[in-house]
Amino acid sequence: MCELLGMSANVPTDICFSFTGLMQRGGKTGPHRDGWGIAFYQGRGCRAFHDPNPSAESEIALLVQRYAIKSRIVISHIRRANRGRICLENTHPFSRELWGRNWVFAHNGQLRGVKRLPLTYYRPIGTTDSEHAFCWLLGCIRDRFPRPPQGSNSLWRYLHELTEQLNQRGVFNFLLSDSCHLYAHCSTQLSWLTRKAPFGKACLMDADMTVDFQVETTPNDIVTVIATQPLTDNESWTLMRPGALAIFNSGQRVAELCG
Amino acid sequence: MCELLGMSANVPTDICFSFTGLMQRGGKTGPHRDGWGIAFYQGRGCRAFHDPNPSAESEIALLVQRYAIKSRIVISHIRRANRGRICLENTHPFSRELWGRNWVFAHNGQLRGVKRLPLTYYRPIGTTDSEHAFCWLLGCIRDRFPRPPQGSNSLWRYLHELTEQLNQRGVFNFLLSDSCHLYAHCSTQLSWLTRKAPFGKACLMDADMTVDFQVETTPNDIVTVIATQPLTDNESWTLMRPGALAIFNSGQRVAELCG
Repeated sequence: MCELLGMSANVPTDICFSFTGLMQRGGKTGPHRDGWGIAFYQGRGCRAFHDPNPSAESEIALLVQRYAIKSRIVISHIRRANRGRICLENTHPFSRELWGRNWVFAHNGQLRGVKRLPLTYYRPIGTTDSEHAFCWLLGCIRDRFPRPPQGSNSLWRYLHELTEQLNQRGVFNFLLSDSCHLYAHCSTQLSWLTRKAPFGKACLMDADMTVDFQVETTPNDIVTVIATQPLTDNESWTLMRPGALAIFNSGQRVAELCG
Repeated sequence: MCELLGMSANVPTDICFSFTGLMQRGGKTGPHRDGWGIAFYQGRGCRAFHDPNPSAESEIALLVQRYAIKSRIVISHIRRANRGRICLENTHPFSRELWGRNWVFAHNGQLRGVKRLPLTYYRPIGTTDSEHAFCWLLGCIRDRFPRPPQGSNSLWRYLHELTEQLNQRGVFNFLLSDSCHLYAHCSTQLSWLTRKAPFGKACLMDADMTVDFQVETTPNDIVTVIATQPLTDNESWTLMRPGALAIFNSGQRVAELCG
């Protein structure tokens, strides 16, 4: 099992606080020693850091914690390898370009026989089930929509349909973004929390750290954090239902498609 | 104009020394203030850092200098913007996947009317001429070779043919890699240098820094550095001829195709 962390915000926001909590689970308070990665969208661009080393000991993780990169969409993952050896090309999140947009994907779970799914446009660089699933999924979207569809509903429904197909093969919790929306699918375990005014204090479960968001934010900020397991112990997280695909934009859940 | 820096080596090697020289040209000894980027291959994986800020003042550049990432192929670029605004998605090097391999590209120069070239598989995320040229080039390779060709000669000849077409539109110095080979094209200006035993000392032109490679290397190491302009003043750099496409593998030039 791996852990996922995502963020959607209406203004560029740093994820240092949540990331600090997650990183502890990478070899310190959790067993996820087999690498970690994080992708920050900035406009249409995307900045990713990957490290096959445990996050709790990673120099690059320290940089990411110190150097507060501000972003409106973030996807992060810490890995406990089950399929695919520990190396850079097997480290989530994975990315590919479709319609001149960066698509980024991170997965938690295992999928049976996923490598038998035929690939068209995109091919895995590494050997994980997860990257194969992502290549298949994005290839299907590209086949169906050679250009971005007018309106989002048809894309969202098709993504949900593909997600259900993959979900039947095992456990398919994932975070996905096309630089506009953040998609979060709960197969077995995924939680989210929206912070907005009036802001309060939050205490990390995995590190002795408290933040007063009242001080850190402006009254108009809206920030949603999505994680495999709640990261704070004094806020009220929403546990997603298995089979649900939630879609976030500018910090708010704009849709949820259920199985 | 921008500056390019590449490395090909037969063992994982850090590029700290050359990178330190290059970074000075990003706003200190040179005018290239509009961002910089670097990609390190590690096996089939690739780790990239991009920063739209001047390299001489960049926090991430300091990390890359301090944290000696070892790699067999590196492509780096510092930018002085001429087309496309200064932002993350316009920061070289650009990357796309073809045949399950990471392809990375960085360009120095300007190309007239390149955006009229039709695109098939790959679309630019940013607005630079350079990314459009890369998308076109890689799409042509994909059309001609839906799978990796047997032997490299046919690919190399076709790449050279495409390169000549683009070069007719202006200035097209570039570095490109498919994770196996490093391709370097000289349109107007590109130099390279191979270091191997017996190793000596090298002195940077842009910073007060000398390295004794005798101490840093083993007798079997072979490392080629490619740069827009020579980075050291006491070594003998080979200035490439305009129109030449040099191909490097494991630190050695394995082919050169001329116009």
